[in-house]
Amino acid sequence: MKINGVTIDPTFAEAFPMKATRVIITADSPRWAKLAASTMTGFATSVIACGCEAAIERNLDPEETPDGRHGIAILLFAMGGKGLAKQVETRAGQCVLTSSTSSLFSGIDGGKRIPLGKNLRFFGDGNQISKVIGGKRYWRIPVMHGEFVVEESTGMVDAIGGGNFLILARTKLQAIAAADAAVTAIKRLSNVIMPFPGGVVGSGSKVGSKYPSVPVSVNDAFCPTLKGVARHSELSAGIECVLEIVINGFTQNDIEEAMRIGIEATCALGQENGIKRVSAGNYGGKLGPYHFKLQEIMA
Amino acid sequence: MKINGVTIDPTFAEAFPMKATRVIITADSPRWAKLAASTMTGFATSVIACGCEAAIERNLDPEETPDGRHGIAILLFAMGGKGLAKQVETRAGQCVLTSSTSSLFSGIDGGKRIPLGKNLRFFGDGNQISKVIGGKRYWRIPVMHGEFVVEESTGMVDAIGGGNFLILARTKLQAIAAADAAVTAIKRLSNVIMPFPGGVVGSGSKVGSKYPSVPVSVNDAFCPTLKGVARHSELSAGIECVLEIVINGFTQNDIEEAMRIGIEATCALGQENGIKRVSAGNYGGKLGPYHFKLQEIMA
Amino acid sequence: MKINGVTIDPTFAEAFPMKATRVIITADSPRWAKLAASTMTGFATSVIACGCEAAIERNLDPEETPDGRHGIAILLFAMGGKGLAKQVETRAGQCVLTSSTSSLFSGIDGGKRIPLGKNLRFFGDGNQISKVIGGKRYWRIPVMHGEFVVEESTGMVDAIGGGNFLILARTKLQAIAAADAAVTAIKRLSNVIMPFPGGVVGSGSKVGSKYPSVPVSVNDAFCPTLKGVARHSELSAGIECVLEIVINGFTQNDIEEAMRIGIEATCALGQENGIKRVSAGNYGGKLGPYHFKLQEIMA
Amino acid sequence: MKINGVTIDPTFAEAFPMKATRVIITADSPRWAKLAASTMTGFATSVIACGCEAAIERNLDPEETPDGRHGIAILLFAMGGKGLAKQVETRAGQCVLTSSTSSLFSGIDGGKRIPLGKNLRFFGDGNQISKVIGGKRYWRIPVMHGEFVVEESTGMVDAIGGGNFLILARTKLQAIAAADAAVTAIKRLSNVIMPFPGGVVGSGSKVGSKYPSVPVSVNDAFCPTLKGVARHSELSAGIECVLEIVINGFTQNDIEEAMRIGIEATCALGQENGIKRVSAGNYGGKLGPYHFKLQEIMA
Repeated sequence: MKINGVTIDPTFAEAFPMKATRVIITADSPRWAKLAASTMTGFATSVIACGCEAAIERNLDPEETPDGRHGIAILLFAMGGKGLAKQVETRAGQCVLTSSTSSLFSGIDGGKRIPLGKNLRFFGDGNQISKVIGGKRYWRIPVMHGEFVVEESTGMVDAIGGGNFLILARTKLQAIAAADAAVTAIKRLSNVIMPFPGGVVGSGSKVGSKYPSVPVSVNDAFCPTLKGVARHSELSAGIECVLEIVINGFTQNDIEEAMRIGIEATCALGQENGIKRVSAGNYGGKLGPYHFKLQEIMA
Repeated sequence: MKINGVTIDPTFAEAFPMKATRVIITADSPRWAKLAASTMTGFATSVIACGCEAAIERNLDPEETPDGRHGIAILLFAMGGKGLAKQVETRAGQCVLTSSTSSLFSGIDGGKRIPLGKNLRFFGDGNQISKVIGGKRYWRIPVMHGEFVVEESTGMVDAIGGGNFLILARTKLQAIAAADAAVTAIKRLSNVIMPFPGGVVGSGSKVGSKYPSVPVSVNDAFCPTLKGVARHSELSAGIECVLEIVINGFTQNDIEEAMRIGIEATCALGQENGIKRVSAGNYGGKLGPYHFKLQEIMA
Repeated sequence: MKINGVTIDPTFAEAFPMKATRVIITADSPRWAKLAASTMTGFATSVIACGCEAAIERNLDPEETPDGRHGIAILLFAMGGKGLAKQVETRAGQCVLTSSTSSLFSGIDGGKRIPLGKNLRFFGDGNQISKVIGGKRYWRIPVMHGEFVVEESTGMVDAIGGGNFLILARTKLQAIAAADAAVTAIKRLSNVIMPFPGGVVGSGSKVGSKYPSVPVSVNDAFCPTLKGVARHSELSAGIECVLEIVINGFTQNDIEEAMRIGIEATCALGQENGIKRVSAGNYGGKLGPYHFKLQEIMA
Repeated sequence: MKINGVTIDPTFAEAFPMKATRVIITADSPRWAKLAASTMTGFATSVIACGCEAAIERNLDPEETPDGRHGIAILLFAMGGKGLAKQVETRAGQCVLTSSTSSLFSGIDGGKRIPLGKNLRFFGDGNQISKVIGGKRYWRIPVMHGEFVVEESTGMVDAIGGGNFLILARTKLQAIAAADAAVTAIKRLSNVIMPFPGGVVGSGSKVGSKYPSVPVSVNDAFCPTLKGVARHSELSAGIECVLEIVINGFTQNDIEEAMRIGIEATCALGQENGIKRVSAGNYGGKLGPYHFKLQEIMA
């Protein structure tokens, strides 16, 4: 299968179940909402060493937020509910409670509830006040900048991590251009995030290595400088750079749509811009129950 | 003592010893260096729950970096060497190794060496190559985007955390304006960072609370809505917002200079812009050996 | 009339008829569309000395543009059709034709048609090609970066210039904060622009001066430092900064809505943030036929 | 001559004498200085239809500006002193005088003096005040935001316009990447600007056309789609995009240095990134007395 001269590999992205939530940060200005959101979603690329995977989902206009201020929606993903709850609470306390003029709300009605302000409220040292509006409990915690308003809990939903596709290009420049185009396109969707720097992974990995204590190592099959060395290189002569777009989302449909939009944007650059192939990362189907077949998605 | 009508309180900021390092991220473009740097320094406001305190120190021009590309210098602080080493390595692996086109270098010659690429190199699964140039060891690790170059180690130095001052203003708007001015001024200095969102803490804390299990709680003495409630409120009637600038630096001199520059910028707005007082956070001298006396610094 | 403690003066903004058009710039990336749009709308604050008043209306997603690329909508206003036509053509030729990867389209169907690519096409030196799609003529002009696609003409409509309101505040800092809030709010509307730097005029003027050859001079009635000097100062003691938001729009309704939204955002900061009054600029009703009465708009 | 596989053509850029000045805009914040500077330098790509060629030279730290505030240095170029004087004054009045919190200073000591605030002062309607500090006259003009401070005059110097080089690449993507790299590198120099959108011209021109009334038309010799049509195409089969970097500067040395730095950055991408050749625009030596020979500059 080819799109605009770009080969779509007969393979699939392998993804796995995660738990996720959406929270909404508001502030007196878009700039301060952004500062809190960037801080909260930093160091959250890969769940194993960061504790969660998180990124900004989108900016919210004042009429979309609970308190009518400028806001930002954030998605956070973890392997289980306990881990997610811990990360949400810790990051909320360190990065949003501390951020000037900010408030914090749930972005998901229903779902299993995990604490948002439930324990943060104790920061008020007994001076916190609770209020129920429209069936939702909010805490007003006095802080030095005035008051930190935080919703009692947020909703946790089943979600999917590890949706992905690989961009195989002739040069680094061309791979970056295609990745940028894909990320720009996918960023306009709801319910998905791309947690790595700039939405892109430059160092895709395989499970295991020759060193017993090292759990993951370079995905040598897709490593341009290891064409002659790797046991089963997937790369032909003209491919000198491979970048991976990793996508987490709420549902299979969310991830499929993101992959489709992203691969379209990649292929729009086409063969004449050095985009050779689109492939995907999987572990032979052993790791994750969700298999996103590239050719079916692009059919 | 008054500067431009702003009272400088006869008090001091209490700071404590930390360990710190500087690392340098380079990339093919300023944008990609920034993406990696923002990711690496996210969720790093307070050492207790984040593991370290980190922020961008400054942008580096190509002629200031080891590989002649655009770069960014980052400072990371932790309570001890072990903690710092762990954070540096984990964040480097999750946020810089994964970031497209990036390389990573030490920004401190000498000092006690802690691993930078020393263990990350195993990601190469045996295909990594080491090279010594000018007495420094570098690792070239093959990755999908090409090659990740990382220096073997970086230098750890004694440092200081918790330098601070408080801006007491009539309104939130005015406090934010003063904090922005202070942060903008301090950001131009080397050897210091302000790890909180936007460089500012909106929810300053005291040690302890009425709940035995809650280690820190609102600094009620400086909390505008608790004037009538707090045992010893430090606030008079006209003060409705208090913001704290927290500064970590390498030496006492670095922090003094940053406090001086920041307080100057704050006072430049002056009484007519609602800036009432500058104070500082301390724990009666029990916590930290470094006491930065505001009036001496501003004399 | 008071809103949140802010006095709404019993006065009106006086506006006058203009001619206007909307054009759409597209490019290979949002960044390049922005570069062309910023250049085209620069030096376009006031029609008398700049030839036109112009600004970015809003960013366009790919599915909103004629060629499916990222785009930006621009509004341009002039006193008459001839002047507008000349400015549109000159600015298109200097700023969009020259901008890498750009194309240029009409953003108004119908209306009286003024040339967009009609004469620019001759830049192709005979190599230009015309194509009619859906009843609209487009020109494909070969250029060094590839091809510049430009629509034959754009639609000119009747419009209104000079909608405005004045923000009277205790300090410069507070006036700027209110102006920023107003501009941010108004920018989300369609069919209006604010052509001055940052959407704000810091040096409002009156017609005439004591020097016969100087046609406009400082609006001394609203000039804080001239309270004791101006014949009829409109300012009381507590007002030290006045900023004007000038709004051009297609219809009376567009301008009314923008004024309403902008004044709301201003008043939201309120008396406690030093916002004292909202007033408006007029010339006693002699200059312009459109009178936007503040109290009616805010009723 | 080849650099990194990129052919440097045995040709020269032809440039011509201009008059230029530097002005400095300061404001209460870097953001407001930028807003005024962008407005003042908009619609200033080519002197013939815009009246002048102008761009931001660089940002200035507070300690580099006359009033200790954040600032921006701007260079403006015109064909003669009269034209330059008119443009400087008009743009200052429309874009800087109107911009909130701004002041305006000369950035060149000595030179022939042209008016900066000399006539703008009449905006004060008799309330302006003059002050001489260190031998320089300044005007304090009362305005609604407070006071507009402007230096009496700025210095005009001999300068050069039309320094340039052409980037010939296999694809548009690659040409843009090289142009971006060149512009980023040149922007770090003083005394030069690149007045076109993003620093780049996508539609280079030749003098004359087949239409008697059209003075300039597409540079068909460097137009990829006209390879088979142009009388003397300079392009071989693999070149599908050509971009021009146009540089104005104070001295021959300034322009040579900028061309050298820019061509270096272009060639750094090299043949493997589709950069085929670097050439330059000239008119056979008939138009301008300054000939910048590429191979000598790069020797």
